[in-house]
Order: sequence, then structure tokens, then C-alpha cells
Amino acid sequence: MVRSAPPRITLLTDFGTADGYVGAVKGVLSQLCPDALLIDITHDIPPGDVRAGAFALMTATRTFPRGTVHLAVVDPGVGTERSGLLVEAGGALFVGPDNGLLSLASAGSRRVFVLDRPSWFQHPVSPTFHGRDVFAPIAARAAAGVLSDELGTSVSGMLEIEIPPARHEPECVCGEVFHVDRFGNLVTTIRDSDLAAEGRERLEAVIGTQRIPLRATYGQAPEGVLIALIGSSGFVEVARVGGSAAAVLAGDGRTGAPVRLMRAA
Amino acid sequence: MVRSAPPRITLLTDFGTADGYVGAVKGVLSQLCPDALLIDITHDIPPGDVRAGAFALMTATRTFPRGTVHLAVVDPGVGTERSGLLVEAGGALFVGPDNGLLSLASAGSRRVFVLDRPSWFQHPVSPTFHGRDVFAPIAARAAAGVLSDELGTSVSGMLEIEIPPARHEPECVCGEVFHVDRFGNLVTTIRDSDLAAEGRERLEAVIGTQRIPLRATYGQAPEGVLIALIGSSGFVEVARVGGSAAAVLAGDGRTGAPVRLMRAA
Amino acid sequence: MVRSAPPRITLLTDFGTADGYVGAVKGVLSQLCPDALLIDITHDIPPGDVRAGAFALMTATRTFPRGTVHLAVVDPGVGTERSGLLVEAGGALFVGPDNGLLSLASAGSRRVFVLDRPSWFQHPVSPTFHGRDVFAPIAARAAAGVLSDELGTSVSGMLEIEIPPARHEPECVCGEVFHVDRFGNLVTTIRDSDLAAEGRERLEAVIGTQRIPLRATYGQAPEGVLIALIGSSGFVEVARVGGSAAAVLAGDGRTGAPVRLMRAA
Repeated sequence: MVRSAPPRITLLTDFGTADGYVGAVKGVLSQLCPDALLIDITHDIPPGDVRAGAFALMTATRTFPRGTVHLAVVDPGVGTERSGLLVEAGGALFVGPDNGLLSLASAGSRRVFVLDRPSWFQHPVSPTFHGRDVFAPIAARAAAGVLSDELGTSVSGMLEIEIPPARHEPECVCGEVFHVDRFGNLVTTIRDSDLAAEGRERLEAVIGTQRIPLRATYGQAPEGVLIALIGSSGFVEVARVGGSAAAVLAGDGRTGAPVRLMRAA
Repeated sequence: MVRSAPPRITLLTDFGTADGYVGAVKGVLSQLCPDALLIDITHDIPPGDVRAGAFALMTATRTFPRGTVHLAVVDPGVGTERSGLLVEAGGALFVGPDNGLLSLASAGSRRVFVLDRPSWFQHPVSPTFHGRDVFAPIAARAAAGVLSDELGTSVSGMLEIEIPPARHEPECVCGEVFHVDRFGNLVTTIRDSDLAAEGRERLEAVIGTQRIPLRATYGQAPEGVLIALIGSSGFVEVARVGGSAAAVLAGDGRTGAPVRLMRAA
Repeated sequence: MVRSAPPRITLLTDFGTADGYVGAVKGVLSQLCPDALLIDITHDIPPGDVRAGAFALMTATRTFPRGTVHLAVVDPGVGTERSGLLVEAGGALFVGPDNGLLSLASAGSRRVFVLDRPSWFQHPVSPTFHGRDVFAPIAARAAAGVLSDELGTSVSGMLEIEIPPARHEPECVCGEVFHVDRFGNLVTTIRDSDLAAEGRERLEAVIGTQRIPLRATYGQAPEGVLIALIGSSGFVEVARVGGSAAAVLAGDGRTGAPVRLMRAA
């Protein structure tokens, strides 16, 4: 027997796990696409933090196989005039609010569809829970094979969140801390591709008054030492071997803090 | 090839996610119903909080397809004389302790079976972990198609938790805060059906000294303002646009606090 | 139609759920073993706490059916010279770093393979994220049926974490607190098998200045009382009926604290 791959829907939300909201969404997905595999990415995006959600969605979804449907709901604007979207990009489908949440994960060539066809929704549509009544039904139908242009209407654009591009100056490449992860690593806006291939071993990251050497991996520095390295998402990160960089850098290690990459003195 | 829908078991517990308990339960389910889809609702019900578990189970399970088995374990009385139950209601099956946990989700017409047949259990049965040794084996067999009256003995009643019904007085409908959700929304015991269809736009919720207008959706008030609305589970909720109502109402916004719905002055 | 059991991969990590790391790992598993059921054990092992991860893995994985692949990543040594492992034990497969994490769950008769064949990895291999680029590809291939000696090279040993064996003295059996669980139960290193079958009802656990009677189950003591019992993993535990033993024992209830089992005076 050849078993074809089952439909696959991932979930990323800010619903937390103390309430029944995640279950209500999974119930709708199960109802409308009964053989789908439901895969939790996270439900612990800080409430309403669209930027954190967009970044997590980008780093989480790159590795999934073609045809995966990614349902993402961080939706502080539910019940206002913001639209819902279905986005095709890189062989994947993204479903969620038009508030930038889907923009980093679907960057590049994409097709955008606005969810303007209430016949696909679950009625009555709660004005406060489009995750259950609008986005889940669309994600389930997309996973079940309904075509995007049946589920919505093609539009030319969507709201974008941007990772501010690094500035290239004569003495340095300048960026900022974009995200602090669970381990206290500071993920910056400076990309691997912002750095010349040559001479990296002489570069330092400067945060506040700290000068932090760029290394290839944790094993190149002793426990407790701050290092910079190219993180797993392709951005320069500042980390502390066996500890939390955010904890020791304190105010200098917060989201938005300036970071410069420059030649060691 | 027609793929029939696989068996489906949801899990709601207070086990948290720092220990191996959730895994031990999933292992038993996998052992005894190998093709079941295991769907996490939550493992973060506050330890021993049967009422919070019962409310989350109710809001989480309504949307699942017929035949879904819901395994729920918030069981502070494990190792005492409380019974275990299998309950059929609304096309779903609920398995867990007889302490009220299953009562809100299975309200209405139901069939109740007490789990009095140790031959279905995993032996030796730990006196402290019926989730693994009693409830998981029963849930797995139910998902695999074993009939309820083989798994237990039909009984006439079960322990009930009640959402106290709202009181209808001449000037107001009176209830209380039943649950505070992750976003700081206050879910009250006043139901959509407690309010007349007409004249809702003139109603206010009164909590402490605050008078909070009833609105249809978040978009009808500016950021930071308190509003009341019909929440996604059909109860009146008090929310703060773009923030936490519980945070600003403090002591007046706790579980059990009185709430009145009345005509605006 | 006979449906054969699908491949099954469990996940235990310290990645937390605020970032996209868990999703990235699940994407690789989905890519390389598309019909695998992915089963979360936990992602909330304290960052870098190999011992806590090893204990949770042991208690979580015993109940799973033969052939289950357990992917475990608590890997503070990523990017150093520590090896990666695939371990066959008890009909299950374990994949993760060679830092002791897999040792408790795979104790007993086992076959150990070092992951020394980069052709199976995802390239480029991030020096900071072997969970995604090394362990997930190996786990997926193992679940898909690739034999262990194709995935790695058989070796004779691995790094071990030990649960220190209890000392048997004339007056007592002496051990320590090994783990404090979510409910505040103190799991000790004293095993069921360390105690004679006879006379257990006269035993007490001594922690600090407290003498705590051994009971068969919670129902044998009133709310709020400290009791010792044989926990669900086969170790003596100290618990408080309806509450947290760790909270009332404070400093005496921490990991590593001495515990003695002795005849009541």
C-alpha cells in the first residue's frame, strides 16, 4: 500500500494554553479536514505582538514540505476593518489576519488572496474570534485541496512588517537587536549576506560598551564568554556560552538596541 | 484510495509541561490505539483547578467532529474513592474523573458509564496516576471502537459543576465573573440568551464602580477603553480594547466578582 | 482496508515555545518522513538542564509502542566536540546529543551509534542548531525505516547520567531528592525495589526535621498532610495531599536534599 502524505496544518497563535481557544480552532480544522495532521508551532507569542509572531512564523516554517498550510493568528485588530488573508509563497499556504503577521514568512514571490467570501466561514462569526470562525475554516479547506481563488479574491498587496536592512558604513555594518530568544540570544538585523566572506575572524559586534568577537561556534570560547556568531536563521546573533547574553547585557541587550559589526581594533 | 477519518483523541490536563507525565499518557494512547491522532488542548490548567478545567473543556470541545474522544485529567482526588467516568454526549466521548470536570462539556442529553472494570486498565495501576493507567487505556479503547457499555457500567448521574444561572431582576440581569482568560478578558455567567434581542446598544455592564457599554465588537471603541460584548462562547465578556481588562479592574475583575447588566442611565 | 501503524516521532527539548525553533525541527521531520505522527512530550525542560531532560525522557517514553523514535534535544554543548547519537533500547530509538540526555531512558541493554555520516544531515549544518540540521534528519530517517547502522557507526559506550543508588544502612535506606515535579512532589532516588515488601506501613521518610509516614495513596491522609508514597515512576515520592510538598518543605525539599526511609519510632 502506498500511503500518500496526509494534509498538514501548522498553528501559531498568541492564545496561550490556559483557555479552550486552541482546542476550539483544532476542532474546526478536524471537522473540515478530518485527516489533517495538526502541528503546533507555538501558542505563546506574547498577546498581540504581531512582530514577534511574524518573526517566529518565518523561522518556524521554512523547513516544512510543499503544500503545508500555516495557520497564524495574532490578531489584536479582530473585530475592526482589517482583512483576512490567504497567501501562497514558496510552495506553502499561509492563513491569518492582514496585519503583517504573514509577511516575513511569505516574503519574496507570493500570491495574496483576501478572504471576502463569508460562505466559507463558520456562522455565526464571532466578532472576537476569527481564528475559529474565519481563519480555521479557510485553512482546513485549503489543506483539503480547495483552490485559493475559490477561497478568496486575488489582491496585489498586503500589510508588511520589515526587518530593517542593515546600513553599510565605511567602518561598520550597523543594525539592531530584532528578537531576544528563550536562551537569551540576541538575534540582530544583520544578515550573513551583509558580511564579506573574508576576514570574518577579525570582526567584532559592538553593543553598548561591549566589544564581542565573531566566532564560528560556541566551542570556540569558554563558558560564560560573550560571542557573536551567524545564528541558525542566517542573522548575526550575540550569545553567551552556556548562559544568557540578554541577562548580562541587560538594557543594552533589549529589542531595538543598536548593534555594529566592525573590524577589531 | 479512500482514506477514512482516523480516530482522534484530545488531551486536557493540569500536568504542565516540565515533567514526563504528558508523554506517559500519550505513550499509552499510542500503544493501544496506534493510528489515533493525538491533539493537545492544554496541559496548563492550574494544578487541581477542576472548575477552570471544566470551563476550558467546554469551550474547547464544541467544534470537534462526531466520534472524537476527549481525555481530561484534572484529578486532585486521585487515590481516593472518586470514580472514573466515560460520558457520551453530543456525538463525542469524554473520559476522566467524576469530579465535575466533564460536566460542563457534556451538559444536556448524555449517557454516563462508571469505569469499574479493571481488566481494561494498565496494571499495576499507580494510586497517583490514573491518567496513565485508567483513563488513557479507556480513552484509547473508546477511540478504537470498543463500545461504552463494554468499558464501563451505565449509571444515572455524575458530579456536576454549575455555571450559576444569571438572576433576572427588574432593573438588571445579575451574574458574576466566571473565568479570566489569557488576554485579561472577564468571561461572565450572563449568557447571550439572558439578554433581550432589542435595545442591547443601550445596555451597560456594571463592575465595581465602572459602567461599561455593551458593544458588538472591539472596533466600536478606541484603544484602551473598556467594553462589554458577547464573547465567542456565548457569554457576556468585559474586555479592554488592545489590553487587559483584568489588569485595569484589579480586584473588581477577579473570578466571582459580581457583574450587572442594566440600561444606561 | 488494514491501516498499518504510522511512524511516530516524539519530541522533548528545552527550546521553549516563544520562538520558531520547535517548528523548524517539525518541518524537517515532516519533510523527510511525511506520514509521521509528531508527538510533543515537552519543550519546557529548563534551558540546558540535561539532568532534568534525562529524567523527563525516562518517565515519558516507557509506555510508547515498539518502533517509536524519540528525538531529544537539550544540548548546551552544541558547537563543541560532543557527538550525536542514535540509541536502540527496549524496542525504541532515541536520537540526541551524547551528553547523558538519552542515558536514563535507554538504560539496560542497548545499541549505540555515533552520528558520523554528514551525508544524512541537512546542509549547511548550523553550528548552533543541530536539533534541526543533524538530529531531526536522523530521527526522520530512522522513523522512515533506515537502519541504524546505515545512519551511524556502532560504538561501545555513551555518556551516562546516573540516578545515585540508594544506600542501605542498618537503620535506614538513604537517598536524595532527584526531581521536584510540577505539583511540588519530591521524587527521590529511593526505588520501590529498595524497600522490603513487608512492614511498609511502619516506614517514615525523614527530610530535614520532618518525619513523613509512607502511605499507599493520597486518600489515606487528610488534605494538607505530608505523606510519602511509591510514585508512578517507581520511586518514593514525598507529597502533600491537595497541595505542594516543595512549598511547605522549602529548603529541605530542593533537588539534592537528603532523604532517609526508616522504621517509625
